[in-house]
Amino acid sequence: MDLKSYIREVPDFPKPGIGFKDIMPLLQDKEAFRAAIDDLYEMVQGYDFDKIVAIESRGFILGGALANKMGVGFIPVRKKGKLPSEVISYTYQLEYGEDTLEMHEDSLVKGERVLILDDLLATGGTVSAAINMVSQLGASVVLVAFLIELKFLSGREKIKDYPIKSLIQF
Amino acid sequence: MDLKSYIREVPDFPKPGIGFKDIMPLLQDKEAFRAAIDDLYEMVQGYDFDKIVAIESRGFILGGALANKMGVGFIPVRKKGKLPSEVISYTYQLEYGEDTLEMHEDSLVKGERVLILDDLLATGGTVSAAINMVSQLGASVVLVAFLIELKFLSGREKIKDYPIKSLIQF
Repeated sequence: MDLKSYIREVPDFPKPGIGFKDIMPLLQDKEAFRAAIDDLYEMVQGYDFDKIVAIESRGFILGGALANKMGVGFIPVRKKGKLPSEVISYTYQLEYGEDTLEMHEDSLVKGERVLILDDLLATGGTVSAAINMVSQLGASVVLVAFLIELKFLSGREKIKDYPIKSLIQF
Repeated sequence: MDLKSYIREVPDFPKPGIGFKDIMPLLQDKEAFRAAIDDLYEMVQGYDFDKIVAIESRGFILGGALANKMGVGFIPVRKKGKLPSEVISYTYQLEYGEDTLEMHEDSLVKGERVLILDDLLATGGTVSAAINMVSQLGASVVLVAFLIELKFLSGREKIKDYPIKSLIQF
């Protein structure tokens, strides 16, 4: 199935000059959504992990589906202030300003093996924050996986110490 | 499986006096997460729908998993400004202030049948907004489903024109 044809480019979002890759046409089509999760499932075969760490918000849709299909636990990385219990956090620089992500400090135990999943690899700032927090908790990242990779932004460079896979490339 | 025992109450979140029902212990346990999705799957049997409409952000985790398991499409209801293409919106009152939710206007077509899913039914304001937008798009709500229902807040009253089911009640 040509999943790429279900990704819609929306011009000038979130700001002028950016062509946003919108995965909603893929998610709302039952065959494309199922094929995408099946393909992600195949893509991560051979990697042994206990939990999927998924990044808010679109990563939650894919992460929930894949964790359920694989029979592993689901751990969210959320924006600051959203998780109710004790958290660890990581602040990283954006083009203008900064952003902070959080994880529950009891979400992983030392030695656990995790897959980090997000919908899109762009410059790699967000996923680097997730990797940093997983490491803070003493767990190890066995694979970093994406539905889409924007190769022209070279996000791989920022996370090159880890295995990386993506299903669709632009 | 006693899923209720996997819901953690966090006192004074998001503000003093509120006991927040945290579903993260359930999601991060592989057996509890799988059992919850299996039970939601059983709970919605007998309702005929084409798509699951899930509400940001925790609803995305459950909605992604359930839509994939059922082989139906996934449609997000998001906070204002997050969806890239043309949207419809609905603004509703909170205790202090108001909130606006959005859906893509091409996410549903007239006559489609949808399940609306969220993690928690509290006062019902958020899910009412979702129902309103689904109706604006000409689709019909065949069931409104929740992982958790806080019965003492009587949210059912606000959506009593629709079938409602919840897996865990407090």
